[in-house]
Amino acid sequence: MGGISTVLVLGDQPPRQLDLLGPAARIMRAEPTRLRDQLAAADVVLVWDFTSDAVRDAWPERGRVPAWVHTASAGVDRLVFPALIASRTVLTNARGVFEQPIAEYVAGLVLAMAKDFQGTWELQRQRRWRHRETMRVAGSQAVVVGAGPIGRAVGSTLAALGIQVALVGRTGRDGDPDFGRVRCRVELPVLLAEADWVVCAAPLTEETRGMFDAAAFDRMKASARFINVGRGPLVVADDLVRALLARRITGAVLDVFDDEPLPHDHRLWDVPGLLISPHMSGDTFGWRDELAEQFLDNFARWTAGRPLLNVVDKQLGYVPVGQASGGPDD
Amino acid sequence: MGGISTVLVLGDQPPRQLDLLGPAARIMRAEPTRLRDQLAAADVVLVWDFTSDAVRDAWPERGRVPAWVHTASAGVDRLVFPALIASRTVLTNARGVFEQPIAEYVAGLVLAMAKDFQGTWELQRQRRWRHRETMRVAGSQAVVVGAGPIGRAVGSTLAALGIQVALVGRTGRDGDPDFGRVRCRVELPVLLAEADWVVCAAPLTEETRGMFDAAAFDRMKASARFINVGRGPLVVADDLVRALLARRITGAVLDVFDDEPLPHDHRLWDVPGLLISPHMSGDTFGWRDELAEQFLDNFARWTAGRPLLNVVDKQLGYVPVGQASGGPDD
Repeated sequence: MGGISTVLVLGDQPPRQLDLLGPAARIMRAEPTRLRDQLAAADVVLVWDFTSDAVRDAWPERGRVPAWVHTASAGVDRLVFPALIASRTVLTNARGVFEQPIAEYVAGLVLAMAKDFQGTWELQRQRRWRHRETMRVAGSQAVVVGAGPIGRAVGSTLAALGIQVALVGRTGRDGDPDFGRVRCRVELPVLLAEADWVVCAAPLTEETRGMFDAAAFDRMKASARFINVGRGPLVVADDLVRALLARRITGAVLDVFDDEPLPHDHRLWDVPGLLISPHMSGDTFGWRDELAEQFLDNFARWTAGRPLLNVVDKQLGYVPVGQASGGPDD
Repeated sequence: MGGISTVLVLGDQPPRQLDLLGPAARIMRAEPTRLRDQLAAADVVLVWDFTSDAVRDAWPERGRVPAWVHTASAGVDRLVFPALIASRTVLTNARGVFEQPIAEYVAGLVLAMAKDFQGTWELQRQRRWRHRETMRVAGSQAVVVGAGPIGRAVGSTLAALGIQVALVGRTGRDGDPDFGRVRCRVELPVLLAEADWVVCAAPLTEETRGMFDAAAFDRMKASARFINVGRGPLVVADDLVRALLARRITGAVLDVFDDEPLPHDHRLWDVPGLLISPHMSGDTFGWRDELAEQFLDNFARWTAGRPLLNVVDKQLGYVPVGQASGGPDD
C-alpha cells in the first residue's frame, strides 16, 4: 500500500475503467505462459474472468505473493485454495452487485413456473387456445439455501410475493432482523419435505459441494421445483436428472453448471422439466460497469490505506453477513 | 327476499356447491329458448358463464325483472346495459377472487420479459448457450391503468419488486393509503411517455373502450411493454399490431381479446413480440370453488335480508373502492 501498486489483471476483456486507476497503479495484463512470475511480482490481482482456475494453478508455492486479490464475482470458490488461504493475501469479492438482479431472476422463475408461461408460449406456437388453471404463489413455501447476501435478497423478494420463506444458513440463529429465524443446514431434510420451491444460493465450499443429491431430491414433494443460482457442483447433476425423469420433482432451473458453457451435446439440454439458463441470473445491463466501479472504489481505499470492503473469510469461503459492509443487513 | 327465491343459473357447468343453497333456493337452469320468461320469473340470477351476452339479449323490456344479478367475474361490462342500469336490479360481482392471482401473473410477465425467459427457452431448444444481459426491474417505471381492486393489487405487487408505480384512475386523488396519489386519466399521455411497463386493468366502460389506440402507443417509449388483463375492447388490436410491427414498442401480452377463444386463424397468434395468454391471468387452482363460495355467502346474506357484498355502481360499471367491502383498501 502507498506508492505505486502493480495490478495484475486476468481476463480477455478487462474494463475500460482501469484507465481511471491513476498513477498509483501499474497495470500488468496476465499472460498465461508467465503467470507464475507475474503473480510473484503483483501487489494486487483483479480476477476479471472468474471462470478460470489460472490463479490457483499458477500461485507461487513460496516467496512473494500478491497482497490483495479481488474477484469480479460473488462466488470465490476458485480462489479459496489452500495456498491462498494460508497466505496473508486479502481476498475480496463483488458483493453488492448481484443480489438484487439474482433475486429478481429467481422471483421471475418462480412466477413463470407457477403460471406456466412456457406452456403458454408452446401453445401459442401451435395457435392453440387452451385455458389452464395455475398456481397461486402467495402462501406457498420456499426454502432458500444460503444465508449470505444473495440468499437473503432472494428470500426477501419471495417473501414480498407472499411466499413463506425458510432461509437456511451454515449455522442457525434467532433474531434475524429480516427473517426472524435463520435455519441451520441440519434442518434441511425436514424443510425440503415442505417446500414448493427450493432455491440454492449457497457458496461452494467443501461442506456444500454436492449437497443437492438423490437423498435431497427424495425428500422433496413431487410438486416441488428446484432452482440453482449458486455454483454447478452444489448439485449432483445426475441425481437431478434422475429425479426429473422419475417425476420425483416437477421442475428445475439451472443457471450454473459444472462445465460452462454447457457443451452442445450435453444431455442436460433436453431433460423434461429442466430449464437451462446460461449463467446470467445476476447480469443486468451495466453489471460490468458496476463491477469495475466497485474495484475502483476498493483500489482507492487500498492506496489510501483504508480497510477494504467485501473481505472474504477465507476459511468460510464467503464474506460473513454484517462484515465489511455498510450495515448489518447489507 | 325472505321465503324461497328462484335462482336462475346461466352456464353449462354450474358449480356443485349450488346444492348447498338449501331450501331457500329454487334452482332454475337457463334454457336459451325461454330465457326471457325465465328472467321474468327469477328472483336471483347467477351468471356463471360470464362470456355470454344472453342476459342482455333476453332481458325483459317491461314487467318483472330479477331483483339481484350476480356475475362470477370481476368485469361487469356485459351486464351494465341500459335496461339493467335503469332497473332496480342489484348487480354484484366476484371482487376479491382475482386480485392477487392477476397481480402475480402480471408481476411474472414483467419479470419474464425483463429477464427474457422466452429467449432462454428458444435457445435451449437449439442447445445454444448464449449469455445475455437483462433488465433490472427495480427502479423501472410502471403505469397501471385501473385503480380498482385488481389495478391496486397489480400496483402493490410491482411496487414490492421495487418498481415505481403510477396508478391511474378515472379521477385523480391524493392521500391514497397505498399509493399516495392516484393519477387522473387525463394525465395518462404524459405518464405513458415515461413508462417501461404499461398495464391495463381498467373496467370496460364507454369511457375506456379503445383507450389503448395508436395515439397511446405512440406516446410510449420504444422499449416499453404493454400488458392487458382488463377486457379485449380496451385495446384497439389493429393499432397494437401496427405498433409492434413498427417496433414503436418492444413487447406486449394480451390475456383478453375481442373474440374469445381467439380463432385459430387469427393474425394475433404470430405477431412478433406479442404473447397470447388465453384469459387465465386470474384463474388459480380452486378459483371456481372460490367463486361458488362467494355466491353462497352472498346468497346467505340475501335470504337473511342483510346487505349484499360487492354491489356494482351500475353507472360507473364497477364496485367503487371502499364500498361494500371489509375495508377501505379491500
